[in-house]
Amino acid sequence: MRLSRYFLPTLKEAPSDAQIVSHQLMLRAGMIKQEAAGIYAWLPLGLRVLNRIEQIVREEQERAGAVELLMPTLQLADLWRESGRYDAYGPEMLRITDRHERELLYGPTNEEMITDIFRGFVKSYKALPLNLFHIQWKFRDERRPRFGVMRGREFLMKDAYSFDIDEASARRAYNRMFVAYLNTFARMGLKAVPMRADTGPIGGDLSHEFIVLADTGESQVFCDKQLVEMPAPGADVDWNDLQAIVDGRTSLYAATEEMHDAAQFESQTADGDRLTARGIEVGHIFYFGTKYSAPMKAKVAGPDGQDTEVHMGSYGVGVSRLLGAIIEASHDDAGIIWPDAVAPFDVVVINLRANDPGVCEACEAAVEALEAAGKSVLYDDTDERPGGKFATADLIGIPWQLTIGPKGVAEGVVELKRRASGEKSTLPLDQAMERIG
Amino acid sequence: MRLSRYFLPTLKEAPSDAQIVSHQLMLRAGMIKQEAAGIYAWLPLGLRVLNRIEQIVREEQERAGAVELLMPTLQLADLWRESGRYDAYGPEMLRITDRHERELLYGPTNEEMITDIFRGFVKSYKALPLNLFHIQWKFRDERRPRFGVMRGREFLMKDAYSFDIDEASARRAYNRMFVAYLNTFARMGLKAVPMRADTGPIGGDLSHEFIVLADTGESQVFCDKQLVEMPAPGADVDWNDLQAIVDGRTSLYAATEEMHDAAQFESQTADGDRLTARGIEVGHIFYFGTKYSAPMKAKVAGPDGQDTEVHMGSYGVGVSRLLGAIIEASHDDAGIIWPDAVAPFDVVVINLRANDPGVCEACEAAVEALEAAGKSVLYDDTDERPGGKFATADLIGIPWQLTIGPKGVAEGVVELKRRASGEKSTLPLDQAMERIG
Repeated sequence: MRLSRYFLPTLKEAPSDAQIVSHQLMLRAGMIKQEAAGIYAWLPLGLRVLNRIEQIVREEQERAGAVELLMPTLQLADLWRESGRYDAYGPEMLRITDRHERELLYGPTNEEMITDIFRGFVKSYKALPLNLFHIQWKFRDERRPRFGVMRGREFLMKDAYSFDIDEASARRAYNRMFVAYLNTFARMGLKAVPMRADTGPIGGDLSHEFIVLADTGESQVFCDKQLVEMPAPGADVDWNDLQAIVDGRTSLYAATEEMHDAAQFESQTADGDRLTARGIEVGHIFYFGTKYSAPMKAKVAGPDGQDTEVHMGSYGVGVSRLLGAIIEASHDDAGIIWPDAVAPFDVVVINLRANDPGVCEACEAAVEALEAAGKSVLYDDTDERPGGKFATADLIGIPWQLTIGPKGVAEGVVELKRRASGEKSTLPLDQAMERIG
Repeated sequence: MRLSRYFLPTLKEAPSDAQIVSHQLMLRAGMIKQEAAGIYAWLPLGLRVLNRIEQIVREEQERAGAVELLMPTLQLADLWRESGRYDAYGPEMLRITDRHERELLYGPTNEEMITDIFRGFVKSYKALPLNLFHIQWKFRDERRPRFGVMRGREFLMKDAYSFDIDEASARRAYNRMFVAYLNTFARMGLKAVPMRADTGPIGGDLSHEFIVLADTGESQVFCDKQLVEMPAPGADVDWNDLQAIVDGRTSLYAATEEMHDAAQFESQTADGDRLTARGIEVGHIFYFGTKYSAPMKAKVAGPDGQDTEVHMGSYGVGVSRLLGAIIEASHDDAGIIWPDAVAPFDVVVINLRANDPGVCEACEAAVEALEAAGKSVLYDDTDERPGGKFATADLIGIPWQLTIGPKGVAEGVVELKRRASGEKSTLPLDQAMERIG
């Protein structure tokens, strides 16, 4: 992509109402523009990162056996009356009346709708276990939206819903999502710790939040240090028996503020291992049994022919919020440092003299070679001065910067910089490409 | 994808309120479920087709130089007051009030918001021409939603917006979208005819609808027969000079009912070439000059340093509606016949005896070989009887059916059926794969 034909409106300074670094950097890097309180437009660079994060979430859901569908943003109020949540949900629910005076709402979550889909089609235990997920825009009318996409009102969420014949099977479904989440966040370069959590308006008796530690986190968290450095299980696990992996985490103390028990923290955790920190919630999983299937009559015929209410769980990832969490965890004074797996482009090629035909030719050859090797490339072909180009490249955080100027062309070399380490090398293009990998 | 682990709730009969064949077949094939009047959940099979159509639209937009971003579904009413459309739009606009009594609306289109984004960042003619598009859910509160996804209320639309320094440049932008649309619809196996159209609530003085001819079309259209069979220009065109290609179409008579002029139709079209038919609108493009940039003060400094209001156009494709249009154009008594480019899976492998280890082994080998060759495969590994499996395969319209039973395993052959022609061959797997391509 040529920068001269792209739309990358970077800002010298962030607006003063952006309080946290991820919000400031997303605005400065031309990733988002606020359109109303807590409602953002995703500019091209922001959308590219959002798409990559969404794709990682999707792949790990599918690997864990979940099947994707897509529910609409608007729902009938009557559906929520069946579960009793229409009145219970409070002012965070955006309630809407259409031209025929029918009551709708903008979905803040989808337990009721997926239960309605399930009961409409599934009649036998033979179709179970089933886990259905979608990645769709949600709306929660936060009283004080803030921190950019971290606490927005219109936000992108992945929500999965599992259906099982009994509690034992439902807990296996819960474990699959537990492990899928560990893998998902690890692929994005995040260290996310599962913590016992309050179930809130979703309900149920078993719930974990996945928390990324960051100084700007919205809530206090308490955990055993060992959990932070524990590697993700990876894809090569027995997806039908994950209890040992889950137990390996849940046997160590980790709790959000609402669930914290100081005495237990002290007795369960060795002296040097007690970590008290701020955290950002990036995922939340729930097992809630028949909380929705009972009132909404979602039943299947069991092996004995008897109708049984299905056991359910739900599993959310804050897809748009993850951009903020990743930036909070990965930036420096010059800007964002994208982990390779979620970067908007793999490489930025910087042309130091855009009016020099030889330099342009060398740049275009480099772009072509990189793209042929499967890399996504942003080509800064503008007539901005070099200092400005370097500053933009650092700000937007592309993992590799490949710079070409008249001197390099004369000598047959390029300059390669790794954004994360700042390390620079001057070397021929083919060696630079090997380094990029 | 193993059918036993998938979610494909097919129906024997469509509900009686489904009036047209595409709506009936989408329900029967387990592609959608209605959640409210004109609001649908996309079940896994439907979502796969929606994603493929969306991707074709995206690729052809990018080929024509448009850059993708993503605007939110909800917008501030005040933005629409700036253009004067808030009061003008009427009851099709879904108006919403949030917890702080701020007036919002669910975007039916995005001229105002994109103009706001543009004026916030672009200050110089040097950034032009610029074309920004997004693919996002829209809402229009139709008085009588019907025909399934063809006239839904919540629907997926691609909308692009061009910004140019003057009318001549804006018309070149219009031509690029005109040609991109011809290519887009042709890739989906559709014959879409551009027709002079009314500009309606978008405004402007130049507009074409792209119409797919189908007996169930919602409106009457009139055109020269030659337009129907004219091949798409393809990607290999001079994107800076498309006037001859556009003139080649617009010089022939084609008009929707609102714009039809019977006398002109007669004088401009040879006797055997006059076609009167029903049509489905799948795209609509507009040039409207400064209709939004003037009231919203979207100006750039021109080469002479003077501020100039930008000339704009907008360009819509009904992404979700296209599923209906394609099915209307491509089905038979047994079900849907997906064109290869938009099919939910390339091949369905049908296991005729799911309790026979030898047959299962042969099927799994075929699935693996097909997937290794880059094909997407639905594997019917259920214990349904063969007749039911064939009926489902025909109903859901996968382009190739590859059937394996005990007799074939013994003889080292499979049965390959092309859904569109019904042609069947019995042949070894490697030859079947060659045939599939």
